[in-house]
Amino acid sequence: MTKRIAYLGPPGTHSEEAALRYAPDSELVPYPSLLHVASAVEERAVDEAIVPVENSIHGSITDITDFLIGTQRASIRHELVHRVRNCLLVESGTELEDVSIIFSHPQPLGQCRTYLQSHLPEAELIASASTASAILDLKSNSSTGAAIGTNRAAKIYGLCIAAEGIDANPENATRFLIIAERDHPRTGIDRTSIAFDFEDNKSGLLVSALQPFAERNISLTKVESRPTGRKLGRYVFLLDFEGHRTDHNVKQALAELRRQASMVKVLGSYPRSPYPLTHASEQNKQDN
Amino acid sequence: MTKRIAYLGPPGTHSEEAALRYAPDSELVPYPSLLHVASAVEERAVDEAIVPVENSIHGSITDITDFLIGTQRASIRHELVHRVRNCLLVESGTELEDVSIIFSHPQPLGQCRTYLQSHLPEAELIASASTASAILDLKSNSSTGAAIGTNRAAKIYGLCIAAEGIDANPENATRFLIIAERDHPRTGIDRTSIAFDFEDNKSGLLVSALQPFAERNISLTKVESRPTGRKLGRYVFLLDFEGHRTDHNVKQALAELRRQASMVKVLGSYPRSPYPLTHASEQNKQDN
Repeated sequence: MTKRIAYLGPPGTHSEEAALRYAPDSELVPYPSLLHVASAVEERAVDEAIVPVENSIHGSITDITDFLIGTQRASIRHELVHRVRNCLLVESGTELEDVSIIFSHPQPLGQCRTYLQSHLPEAELIASASTASAILDLKSNSSTGAAIGTNRAAKIYGLCIAAEGIDANPENATRFLIIAERDHPRTGIDRTSIAFDFEDNKSGLLVSALQPFAERNISLTKVESRPTGRKLGRYVFLLDFEGHRTDHNVKQALAELRRQASMVKVLGSYPRSPYPLTHASEQNKQDN
Repeated sequence: MTKRIAYLGPPGTHSEEAALRYAPDSELVPYPSLLHVASAVEERAVDEAIVPVENSIHGSITDITDFLIGTQRASIRHELVHRVRNCLLVESGTELEDVSIIFSHPQPLGQCRTYLQSHLPEAELIASASTASAILDLKSNSSTGAAIGTNRAAKIYGLCIAAEGIDANPENATRFLIIAERDHPRTGIDRTSIAFDFEDNKSGLLVSALQPFAERNISLTKVESRPTGRKLGRYVFLLDFEGHRTDHNVKQALAELRRQASMVKVLGSYPRSPYPLTHASEQNKQDN
Protein backbone atom coordinates (compact mmCIF):
# COMPACT_ATOMS: atom_id res chain seq x y z
CA MET A 1 0.00 0.00 0.00
CA THR A 2 1.28 3.46 -0.86
CA LYS A 3 2.36 5.41 2.21
CA ARG A 4 0.54 8.73 2.69
CA ILE A 5 2.68 11.64 3.89
CA ALA A 6 1.40 15.04 5.05
CA TYR A 7 3.45 18.18 4.22
CA LEU A 8 3.05 21.94 4.24
CA GLY A 9 1.76 22.82 0.78
CA PRO A 10 1.40 23.96 -1.91
CA PRO A 11 3.43 21.71 -4.28
CA GLY A 12 6.84 23.13 -5.25
CA THR A 13 7.95 24.23 -1.76
CA HIS A 14 11.17 23.10 -0.04
CA SER A 15 8.94 20.87 2.14
CA GLU A 16 7.64 19.00 -0.89
CA GLU A 17 11.19 18.69 -2.26
CA ALA A 18 12.29 17.14 1.06
CA ALA A 19 9.25 14.82 1.18
CA LEU A 20 10.01 13.53 -2.33
CA ARG A 21 13.58 12.91 -1.30
CA TYR A 22 12.51 11.06 1.86
CA ALA A 23 9.93 8.83 0.15
CA PRO A 24 9.76 9.24 -3.65
CA ASP A 25 6.98 6.65 -4.09
CA SER A 26 4.59 7.91 -1.44
CA GLU A 27 1.39 9.88 -1.84
CA LEU A 28 2.01 13.46 -0.68
CA VAL A 29 -0.91 15.32 0.92
CA PRO A 30 -0.61 19.13 1.31
CA TYR A 31 -1.99 20.91 4.43
CA PRO A 32 -2.28 24.66 5.11
CA SER A 33 -0.25 24.92 8.37
CA LEU A 34 2.38 23.01 10.37
CA LEU A 35 -0.15 22.17 13.08
CA HIS A 36 -2.52 20.75 10.47
CA VAL A 37 0.39 18.68 9.07
CA ALA A 38 1.31 17.22 12.49
CA SER A 39 -2.29 16.64 13.57
CA ALA A 40 -2.97 14.59 10.44
CA VAL A 41 -0.85 11.81 12.03
CA GLU A 42 -2.79 11.97 15.31
CA GLU A 43 -6.05 11.73 13.40
CA ARG A 44 -4.73 8.85 11.22
CA ALA A 45 -5.53 10.78 8.04
CA VAL A 46 -1.95 9.95 6.91
CA ASP A 47 0.79 7.50 7.86
CA GLU A 48 3.52 10.09 8.43
CA ALA A 49 4.08 13.85 8.38
CA ILE A 50 7.19 15.79 7.39
CA VAL A 51 7.86 19.09 9.17
CA PRO A 52 10.76 21.55 8.97
CA VAL A 53 12.27 22.28 12.40
CA GLU A 54 15.39 24.34 11.85
CA ASN A 55 16.19 27.22 9.51
CA SER A 56 12.63 26.93 8.40
CA ILE A 57 10.93 29.28 5.99
CA HIS A 58 7.60 28.12 7.35
CA GLY A 59 7.49 29.75 10.76
CA SER A 60 8.29 28.71 14.26
CA ILE A 61 9.07 25.23 15.49
CA THR A 62 7.30 26.10 18.75
CA ASP A 63 4.00 24.74 17.45
CA ILE A 64 5.58 21.39 16.56
CA THR A 65 7.42 20.90 19.85
CA ASP A 66 4.29 21.85 21.80
CA PHE A 67 2.38 19.34 19.70
CA LEU A 68 4.94 16.57 20.34
CA ILE A 69 5.00 17.28 24.09
CA GLY A 70 1.19 17.21 24.26
CA THR A 71 0.32 14.23 22.07
CA GLN A 72 0.08 10.59 23.13
CA ARG A 73 -0.31 9.37 19.56
CA ALA A 74 2.73 10.57 17.58
CA SER A 75 6.53 10.37 17.82
CA ILE A 76 9.56 11.38 15.77
CA ARG A 77 10.42 8.48 13.44
CA HIS A 78 13.02 9.98 11.08
CA GLU A 79 15.01 13.10 10.44
CA LEU A 80 16.25 14.53 7.15
CA VAL A 81 18.70 17.36 6.53
CA HIS A 82 17.90 18.93 3.20
CA ARG A 83 20.21 21.46 1.60
CA VAL A 84 18.26 24.45 0.36
CA ARG A 85 19.35 25.85 -2.97
CA ASN A 86 17.33 28.82 -4.12
CA CYS A 87 16.96 29.62 -7.81
CA LEU A 88 15.92 32.77 -9.62
CA LEU A 89 12.96 31.72 -11.79
CA VAL A 90 11.56 33.63 -14.76
CA GLU A 91 9.05 33.10 -17.57
CA SER A 92 10.64 31.90 -20.78
CA GLY A 93 11.85 34.90 -22.82
CA THR A 94 12.36 37.23 -19.82
CA GLU A 95 15.69 39.13 -19.88
CA LEU A 96 17.24 39.63 -16.44
CA GLU A 97 17.75 43.36 -17.04
CA ASP A 98 14.00 43.83 -17.55
CA VAL A 99 13.03 42.31 -14.17
CA SER A 100 11.39 45.04 -12.06
CA ILE A 101 9.69 42.94 -9.36
CA ILE A 102 10.74 39.79 -7.44
CA PHE A 103 8.42 37.52 -5.45
CA SER A 104 9.35 35.06 -2.70
CA HIS A 105 8.86 34.14 0.92
CA PRO A 106 10.58 36.70 3.23
CA GLN A 107 13.26 34.23 4.31
CA PRO A 108 14.67 33.45 0.82
CA LEU A 109 14.35 37.17 0.00
CA GLY A 110 16.66 37.83 2.97
CA GLN A 111 19.02 34.92 2.26
CA CYS A 112 19.46 36.00 -1.35
CA ARG A 113 19.82 39.69 -0.43
CA THR A 114 23.50 39.98 -1.47
CA TYR A 115 22.83 38.46 -4.89
CA LEU A 116 19.77 40.64 -5.47
CA GLN A 117 21.59 43.82 -4.42
CA SER A 118 24.44 43.24 -6.84
CA HIS A 119 22.45 41.85 -9.79
CA LEU A 120 18.99 43.44 -9.49
CA PRO A 121 19.41 46.44 -7.18
CA GLU A 122 16.40 48.32 -8.62
CA ALA A 123 13.86 45.49 -8.44
CA GLU A 124 11.00 45.73 -5.96
CA LEU A 125 10.84 42.80 -3.50
CA ILE A 126 7.40 41.39 -2.67
CA ALA A 127 6.72 38.86 0.11
CA SER A 128 4.63 35.78 -0.72
CA ALA A 129 3.23 33.04 1.52
CA SER A 130 5.69 30.41 0.26
CA THR A 131 8.20 29.92 -2.53
CA ALA A 132 5.47 28.10 -4.47
CA SER A 133 2.81 30.78 -4.08
CA ALA A 134 5.44 33.35 -5.14
CA ILE A 135 5.28 31.73 -8.57
CA LEU A 136 1.50 32.08 -8.72
CA ASP A 137 1.97 35.75 -7.71
CA LEU A 138 4.53 36.13 -10.51
CA LYS A 139 2.18 34.57 -13.05
CA SER A 140 -0.75 36.81 -12.10
CA ASN A 141 1.41 39.96 -12.18
CA SER A 142 1.52 42.17 -15.26
CA SER A 143 5.07 43.61 -14.87
CA THR A 144 8.19 41.70 -15.92
CA GLY A 145 9.18 39.80 -12.83
CA ALA A 146 11.00 36.87 -11.25
CA ALA A 147 10.46 34.52 -8.32
CA ILE A 148 12.91 32.83 -5.94
CA GLY A 149 12.14 29.15 -5.46
CA THR A 150 13.16 25.53 -5.92
CA ASN A 151 14.22 23.96 -9.19
CA ARG A 152 11.32 21.54 -8.71
CA ALA A 153 8.94 24.51 -8.74
CA ALA A 154 10.48 25.57 -12.08
CA LYS A 155 9.53 22.13 -13.46
CA ILE A 156 5.99 22.09 -12.00
CA TYR A 157 5.11 25.59 -13.16
CA GLY A 158 7.06 25.65 -16.44
CA LEU A 159 9.56 28.40 -15.60
CA CYS A 160 13.20 28.93 -16.59
CA ILE A 161 16.06 28.94 -14.09
CA ALA A 162 17.90 32.27 -14.64
CA ALA A 163 20.37 31.61 -11.81
CA GLU A 164 20.89 28.71 -9.39
CA GLY A 165 22.31 28.66 -5.83
CA ILE A 166 21.92 32.40 -5.22
CA ASP A 167 21.90 32.05 -1.39
CA ALA A 168 24.53 34.04 0.49
CA ASN A 169 25.36 30.91 2.51
CA PRO A 170 25.94 27.93 0.20
CA GLU A 171 25.65 25.58 3.21
CA ASN A 172 22.07 26.72 3.86
CA ALA A 173 20.18 23.63 5.03
CA THR A 174 16.88 22.79 6.68
CA ARG A 175 16.33 19.98 9.13
CA PHE A 176 13.04 18.11 8.75
CA LEU A 177 11.42 15.64 11.15
CA ILE A 178 9.17 12.82 10.07
CA ILE A 179 6.38 12.21 12.57
CA ALA A 180 4.51 8.91 12.78
CA GLU A 181 2.44 6.85 15.20
CA ARG A 182 5.57 5.20 16.63
CA ASP A 183 9.27 6.09 16.71
CA HIS A 184 11.98 3.98 15.01
CA PRO A 185 13.52 0.71 16.30
CA ARG A 186 17.21 0.88 17.27
CA THR A 187 19.66 0.91 14.33
CA GLY A 188 22.92 1.54 16.25
CA ILE A 189 23.34 5.01 14.71
CA ASP A 190 20.48 6.84 16.35
CA ARG A 191 19.42 10.13 17.78
CA THR A 192 16.86 10.78 20.54
CA SER A 193 14.84 13.94 21.24
CA ILE A 194 13.46 14.66 24.71
CA ALA A 195 11.68 17.51 26.50
CA PHE A 196 11.82 18.21 30.23
CA ASP A 197 11.12 20.93 32.77
CA PHE A 198 11.61 21.77 36.43
CA GLU A 199 9.25 23.06 39.13
CA ASP A 200 11.87 25.69 39.79
CA ASN A 201 14.02 27.99 37.67
CA LYS A 202 17.38 27.92 39.45
CA SER A 203 20.37 28.59 37.24
CA GLY A 204 22.23 25.46 38.33
CA LEU A 205 19.42 23.06 37.45
CA LEU A 206 20.16 22.83 33.74
CA VAL A 207 23.84 22.16 34.43
CA SER A 208 22.99 19.29 36.78
CA ALA A 209 20.37 17.97 34.33
CA LEU A 210 23.03 17.77 31.60
CA GLN A 211 25.55 16.08 33.92
CA PRO A 212 24.14 12.52 33.51
CA PHE A 213 24.69 12.81 29.75
CA ALA A 214 28.17 14.37 30.03
CA GLU A 215 29.30 11.67 32.50
CA ARG A 216 28.35 8.93 30.01
CA ASN A 217 29.90 10.73 27.01
CA ILE A 218 26.49 10.99 25.36
CA SER A 219 26.90 13.68 22.70
CA LEU A 220 24.34 16.45 22.92
CA THR A 221 23.48 17.65 19.44
CA LYS A 222 20.86 20.23 20.43
CA VAL A 223 20.03 22.06 23.63
CA GLU A 224 17.21 24.53 23.68
CA SER A 225 15.21 26.22 26.39
CA ARG A 226 12.26 28.49 26.07
CA PRO A 227 9.57 29.97 28.28
CA THR A 228 6.46 27.79 28.30
CA GLY A 229 4.31 30.92 28.21
CA ARG A 230 2.12 29.26 30.82
CA LYS A 231 3.67 30.57 34.01
CA LEU A 232 6.19 33.28 34.81
CA GLY A 233 9.71 31.85 34.97
CA ARG A 234 8.78 28.37 33.75
CA TYR A 235 10.96 26.96 31.00
CA VAL A 236 10.84 23.81 28.94
CA PHE A 237 14.12 22.28 27.79
CA LEU A 238 14.56 20.43 24.53
CA LEU A 239 17.50 18.07 24.13
CA ASP A 240 18.73 16.02 21.18
CA PHE A 241 21.48 13.50 21.80
CA GLU A 242 23.18 10.57 20.09
CA GLY A 243 21.84 7.13 21.01
CA HIS A 244 18.55 5.24 21.18
CA ARG A 245 16.17 5.33 24.15
CA THR A 246 16.67 1.55 24.50
CA ASP A 247 20.50 1.89 24.81
CA HIS A 248 21.75 1.03 28.28
CA ASN A 249 23.62 4.31 28.94
CA VAL A 250 20.72 6.40 27.58
CA LYS A 251 18.27 4.55 29.87
CA GLN A 252 20.51 5.30 32.87
CA ALA A 253 20.89 8.99 31.98
CA LEU A 254 17.12 9.36 31.51
CA ALA A 255 16.47 7.68 34.87
CA GLU A 256 18.82 10.15 36.58
CA LEU A 257 17.18 13.09 34.80
CA ARG A 258 13.72 11.88 35.89
CA ARG A 259 14.82 12.12 39.54
CA GLN A 260 15.51 15.88 39.10
CA ALA A 261 12.95 17.08 36.57
CA SER A 262 9.23 17.49 37.09
CA MET A 263 8.46 16.21 33.56
CA VAL A 264 10.56 14.18 31.10
CA LYS A 265 9.06 13.16 27.75
CA VAL A 266 10.85 11.15 25.07
CA LEU A 267 9.69 12.64 21.75
CA GLY A 268 11.24 9.80 19.78
CA SER A 269 14.38 7.84 18.82
CA TYR A 270 15.29 7.69 15.13
CA PRO A 271 18.17 6.96 12.72
CA ARG A 272 20.71 9.80 12.69
CA SER A 273 20.95 11.71 9.42
CA PRO A 274 24.41 12.96 8.44
CA TYR A 275 24.71 16.76 8.35
CA PRO A 276 24.60 18.14 5.75
CA LEU A 277 23.40 15.57 3.26
CA THR A 278 23.95 15.66 -0.47
CA HIS A 279 22.14 18.28 -2.39
CA ALA A 280 18.54 17.94 -3.59
CA SER A 281 19.42 18.55 -7.23
CA GLU A 282 21.89 15.66 -7.08
CA GLN A 283 19.03 13.54 -5.76
CA ASN A 284 16.75 14.83 -8.51
CA LYS A 285 19.29 13.67 -11.08
CA GLN A 286 19.09 10.17 -9.58
CA ASP A 287 15.27 10.30 -9.63
CA ASN A 288 15.07 11.24 -13.29
CA MET B 1 14.20 64.28 15.91
CA THR B 2 11.76 61.46 15.29
CA LYS B 3 13.35 58.03 15.74
CA ARG B 4 13.19 55.81 12.63
CA ILE B 5 12.49 52.12 13.27
CA ALA B 6 12.69 49.32 10.70
CA TYR B 7 10.16 46.46 10.86
CA LEU B 8 8.98 43.56 8.74
CA GLY B 9 6.08 44.96 6.72
CA PRO B 10 3.47 45.46 5.49
CA PRO B 11 1.52 47.65 7.99
CA GLY B 12 -0.98 45.74 10.13
CA THR B 13 1.26 42.81 11.07
CA HIS B 14 2.08 41.72 14.64
CA SER B 15 5.55 43.30 14.08
CA GLU B 16 4.03 46.71 13.42
CA GLU B 17 1.76 46.31 16.46
CA ALA B 18 4.83 45.57 18.63
CA ALA B 19 6.79 48.50 17.12
CA LEU B 20 3.95 50.91 17.89
CA ARG B 21 3.85 49.64 21.44
CA TYR B 22 7.64 49.99 21.84
CA ALA B 23 7.84 53.53 20.42
CA PRO B 24 4.42 55.06 19.54
CA ASP B 25 5.90 58.37 18.28
CA SER B 26 8.55 56.96 15.97
CA GLU B 27 8.57 56.74 12.21
CA LEU B 28 8.07 53.08 11.19
CA VAL B 29 9.76 51.90 7.99
CA PRO B 30 8.64 48.53 6.49
CA TYR B 31 11.19 46.14 4.88
CA PRO B 32 10.52 42.91 2.93
CA SER B 33 12.59 40.42 5.02
CA LEU B 34 14.12 40.05 8.48
CA LEU B 35 17.65 40.38 7.06
CA HIS B 36 16.66 43.61 5.32
CA VAL B 37 15.23 44.88 8.63
CA ALA B 38 18.40 44.09 10.60
CA SER B 39 20.77 45.36 7.88
CA ALA B 40 19.00 48.74 7.84
CA VAL B 41 20.67 49.45 11.23
CA GLU B 42 24.12 48.48 9.94
CA GLU B 43 23.64 50.75 6.94
CA ARG B 44 22.35 53.62 9.16
CA ALA B 45 19.14 53.84 7.12
CA VAL B 46 17.26 53.74 10.46
CA ASP B 47 18.05 54.26 14.16
CA GLU B 48 16.70 50.93 15.36
CA ALA B 49 15.13 47.74 14.04
CA ILE B 50 12.52 45.51 15.70
CA VAL B 51 12.66 41.78 14.94
CA PRO B 52 10.62 38.84 16.28
CA VAL B 53 12.82 36.09 17.69
CA GLU B 54 10.55 33.56 19.36
CA ASN B 55 7.21 32.07 18.38
CA SER B 56 7.51 34.12 15.26
CA ILE B 57 5.16 34.01 12.31
CA HIS B 58 7.91 35.52 10.18
CA GLY B 59 10.33 32.64 9.78
CA SER B 60 13.47 31.51 11.47
CA ILE B 61 15.54 33.44 13.98
CA THR B 62 18.66 31.84 12.44
CA ASP B 63 19.12 34.74 10.04
CA ILE B 64 19.03 37.29 12.86
CA THR B 65 21.46 35.46 15.15
CA ASP B 66 23.86 34.91 12.25
CA PHE B 67 23.58 38.62 11.47
CA LEU B 68 24.28 39.60 15.10
CA ILE B 69 27.27 37.24 15.34
CA GLY B 70 28.71 38.62 12.09
CA THR B 71 28.17 42.36 12.45
CA GLN B 72 30.49 44.85 14.13
CA ARG B 73 27.96 47.67 13.89
CA ALA B 74 24.79 46.55 15.66
CA SER B 75 23.79 45.19 19.09
CA ILE B 76 20.64 44.24 20.97
CA ARG B 77 19.37 47.36 22.78
CA HIS B 78 15.92 46.33 24.01
CA GLU B 79 13.55 43.39 24.18
CA LEU B 80 9.78 43.35 24.13
CA VAL B 81 7.38 40.48 24.84
CA HIS B 82 4.18 41.09 22.97
CA ARG B 83 1.08 39.01 23.52
CA VAL B 84 -0.42 37.88 20.24
CA ARG B 85 -4.20 37.95 20.05
CA ASN B 86 -5.59 36.84 16.72
CA CYS B 87 -8.96 38.07 15.49
CA LEU B 88 -11.34 36.79 12.83
CA LEU B 89 -11.83 39.74 10.47
CA VAL B 90 -14.64 40.12 7.92
CA GLU B 91 -16.03 42.78 5.60
CA SER B 92 -18.94 44.69 7.10
CA GLY B 93 -22.21 42.83 6.45
CA THR B 94 -20.62 39.35 6.22
CA GLU B 95 -22.47 36.66 8.18
CA LEU B 96 -20.19 34.04 9.79
CA GLU B 97 -22.27 31.14 8.38
CA ASP B 98 -21.60 32.39 4.82
CA VAL B 99 -17.78 32.34 5.18
CA SER B 100 -16.40 29.75 2.75
CA ILE B 101 -12.71 30.77 2.65
CA ILE B 102 -10.24 31.99 5.31
CA PHE B 103 -6.91 33.71 4.64
CA SER B 104 -3.94 34.06 7.00
CA HIS B 105 -0.28 33.24 7.53
CA PRO B 106 0.21 29.47 8.14
CA GLN B 107 1.13 29.98 11.81
CA PRO B 108 -2.09 31.75 12.90
CA LEU B 109 -4.05 29.26 10.74
CA GLY B 110 -2.46 26.51 12.87
CA GLN B 111 -2.83 28.30 16.19
CA CYS B 112 -6.52 28.99 15.56
CA ARG B 113 -7.17 25.47 14.24
CA THR B 114 -9.42 24.39 17.16
CA TYR B 115 -11.63 27.49 16.82
CA LEU B 116 -11.87 27.11 13.04
CA GLN B 117 -12.73 23.40 13.29
CA SER B 118 -15.60 24.00 15.70
CA HIS B 119 -16.98 27.23 14.20
CA LEU B 120 -16.14 27.06 10.48
CA PRO B 121 -15.36 23.39 9.74
CA GLU B 122 -16.30 23.68 6.04
CA ALA B 123 -14.24 26.77 5.19
CA GLU B 124 -11.20 26.44 2.92
CA LEU B 125 -7.94 27.67 4.53
CA ILE B 126 -5.55 29.66 2.31
CA ALA B 127 -1.98 30.61 3.31
CA SER B 128 -0.89 34.23 2.84
CA ALA B 129 2.54 35.87 3.25
CA SER B 130 1.56 37.69 6.46
CA THR B 131 -1.53 38.51 8.49
CA ALA B 132 -1.64 41.89 6.70
CA SER B 133 -1.37 40.51 3.18
CA ALA B 134 -4.12 37.99 4.08
CA ILE B 135 -6.47 40.99 4.24
CA LEU B 136 -5.44 42.14 0.77
CA ASP B 137 -6.04 38.55 -0.41
CA LEU B 138 -9.49 38.66 1.24
CA LYS B 139 -10.33 41.98 -0.43
CA SER B 140 -9.33 40.79 -3.90
CA ASN B 141 -11.26 37.52 -3.54
CA SER B 142 -14.77 37.16 -4.91
CA SER B 143 -16.18 34.54 -2.46
CA THR B 144 -17.45 35.42 1.01
CA GLY B 145 -14.40 35.13 3.20
CA ALA B 146 -12.59 36.07 6.39
CA ALA B 147 -8.99 36.75 7.46
CA ILE B 148 -7.15 36.07 10.71
CA GLY B 149 -5.12 39.08 11.87
CA THR B 150 -4.58 41.84 14.42
CA ASN B 151 -7.21 44.29 15.61
CA ARG B 152 -4.94 47.05 14.30
CA ALA B 153 -5.23 45.53 10.82
CA ALA B 154 -9.03 45.72 11.19
CA LYS B 155 -8.67 49.47 11.80
CA ILE B 156 -6.19 50.09 8.95
CA TYR B 157 -8.16 48.15 6.37
CA GLY B 158 -11.70 48.96 7.59
CA LEU B 159 -12.80 45.44 8.56
CA CYS B 160 -15.08 44.17 11.33
CA ILE B 161 -13.88 41.93 14.15
CA ALA B 162 -16.17 38.87 14.09
CA ALA B 163 -14.31 37.15 16.97
CA GLU B 164 -11.33 38.13 19.14
CA GLY B 165 -8.71 35.97 20.88
CA ILE B 166 -9.40 32.84 18.86
CA ASP B 167 -5.93 31.29 19.54
CA ALA B 168 -5.90 27.85 21.16
CA ASN B 169 -3.29 29.11 23.66
CA PRO B 170 -4.43 32.39 25.23
CA GLU B 171 -0.87 32.97 26.52
CA ASN B 172 0.49 33.04 22.95
CA ALA B 173 3.28 35.64 22.94
CA THR B 174 6.13 36.72 20.68
CA ARG B 175 9.49 38.01 21.89
CA PHE B 176 10.92 40.88 19.86
CA LEU B 177 14.45 42.31 19.95
CA ILE B 178 15.28 45.92 19.17
CA ILE B 179 18.61 46.24 17.38
CA ALA B 180 20.61 49.49 17.36
CA GLU B 181 24.16 50.74 16.86
CA ARG B 182 24.97 50.26 20.58
CA ASP B 183 23.47 48.17 23.36
CA HIS B 184 21.84 49.66 26.50
CA PRO B 185 23.61 51.12 29.56
CA ARG B 186 23.16 49.18 32.83
CA THR B 187 19.77 49.62 34.54
CA GLY B 188 20.14 47.04 37.34
CA ILE B 189 17.40 44.81 35.84
CA ASP B 190 19.14 43.62 32.70
CA ARG B 191 19.56 40.69 30.39
CA THR B 192 22.58 39.81 28.25
CA SER B 193 22.72 37.67 25.08
CA ILE B 194 25.95 35.97 24.02
CA ALA B 195 27.07 33.49 21.36
CA PHE B 196 30.02 31.13 21.67
CA ASP B 197 31.50 28.01 20.12
CA PHE B 198 34.20 25.41 20.62
CA GLU B 199 36.85 23.95 18.34
CA ASP B 200 35.61 20.58 19.45
CA ASN B 201 32.21 18.96 19.95
CA LYS B 202 32.63 16.94 23.13
CA SER B 203 29.48 16.36 25.11
CA GLY B 204 30.97 17.66 28.36
CA LEU B 205 32.02 21.04 26.93
CA LEU B 206 28.63 22.70 27.18
CA VAL B 207 28.24 21.59 30.79
CA SER B 208 31.61 23.07 31.75
CA ALA B 209 30.84 26.25 29.76
CA LEU B 210 27.66 26.74 31.80
CA GLN B 211 29.43 26.07 35.10
CA PRO B 212 30.86 29.65 35.53
CA PHE B 213 27.28 30.98 35.35
CA ALA B 214 25.80 28.34 37.67
CA GLU B 215 28.54 28.93 40.28
CA ARG B 216 27.70 32.65 40.42
CA ASN B 217 23.92 32.05 40.50
CA ILE B 218 23.52 33.86 37.19
CA SER B 219 20.09 32.79 35.89
CA LEU B 220 20.13 31.40 32.39
CA THR B 221 16.96 32.41 30.58
CA LYS B 222 17.76 30.84 27.22
CA VAL B 223 20.15 28.14 26.06
CA GLU B 224 20.24 27.17 22.44
CA SER B 225 22.67 25.27 20.27
CA ARG B 226 22.54 24.70 16.57
CA PRO B 227 24.82 23.43 13.83
CA THR B 228 26.68 26.31 12.18
CA GLY B 229 26.15 24.62 8.82
CA ARG B 230 29.77 25.46 8.06
CA LYS B 231 31.51 22.34 9.24
CA LEU B 232 30.38 18.88 10.28
CA GLY B 233 29.89 18.70 14.05
CA ARG B 234 30.45 22.39 14.71
CA TYR B 235 27.83 24.06 16.87
CA VAL B 236 27.23 27.61 17.96
CA PHE B 237 25.68 28.16 21.40
CA LEU B 238 23.34 31.04 22.20
CA LEU B 239 22.88 32.03 25.83
CA ASP B 240 20.63 34.64 27.47
CA PHE B 241 21.17 35.34 31.16
CA GLU B 242 20.15 37.88 33.79
CA GLY B 243 22.64 40.71 34.39
CA HIS B 244 24.58 43.34 32.43
CA ARG B 245 27.93 42.74 30.73
CA THR B 246 29.42 45.43 33.03
CA ASP B 247 28.29 43.61 36.23
CA HIS B 248 31.21 42.20 38.20
CA ASN B 249 29.98 38.57 38.35
CA VAL B 250 29.01 38.60 34.65
CA LYS B 251 32.49 39.90 33.70
CA GLN B 252 34.08 37.06 35.71
CA ALA B 253 31.85 34.38 34.15
CA LEU B 254 32.57 35.69 30.64
CA ALA B 255 36.31 35.70 31.33
CA GLU B 256 36.13 32.04 32.43
CA LEU B 257 34.07 31.13 29.37
CA ARG B 258 36.61 32.86 27.08
CA ARG B 259 39.33 30.53 28.40
CA GLN B 260 37.35 27.47 27.17
CA ALA B 261 35.57 28.63 24.03
CA SER B 262 37.12 29.41 20.67
CA MET B 263 34.78 32.39 20.14
CA VAL B 264 32.66 34.40 22.58
CA LYS B 265 30.61 37.34 21.33
CA VAL B 266 28.39 39.57 23.47
CA LEU B 267 25.37 40.36 21.31
CA GLY B 268 24.13 43.01 23.73
CA SER B 269 22.95 43.89 27.27
CA TYR B 270 19.50 45.43 27.62
CA PRO B 271 16.70 46.09 30.14
CA ARG B 272 14.80 42.91 30.98
CA SER B 273 11.18 42.81 29.84
CA PRO B 274 8.71 41.05 32.16
CA TYR B 275 7.15 37.96 30.61
CA PRO B 276 4.42 38.14 29.48
CA LEU B 277 3.56 41.82 29.31
CA THR B 278 0.07 43.29 29.22
CA HIS B 279 -1.92 42.72 26.13
CA ALA B 280 -1.65 44.84 22.99
CA SER B 281 -5.33 45.74 22.94
CA GLU B 282 -5.01 47.17 26.47
CA GLN B 283 -2.14 49.26 25.14
CA ASN B 284 -4.25 50.33 22.16
CA LYS B 285 -6.92 51.57 24.55
CA GLN B 286 -4.31 53.77 26.21
CA ASP B 287 -3.12 55.02 22.80
CA ASN B 288 -6.58 56.09 21.71
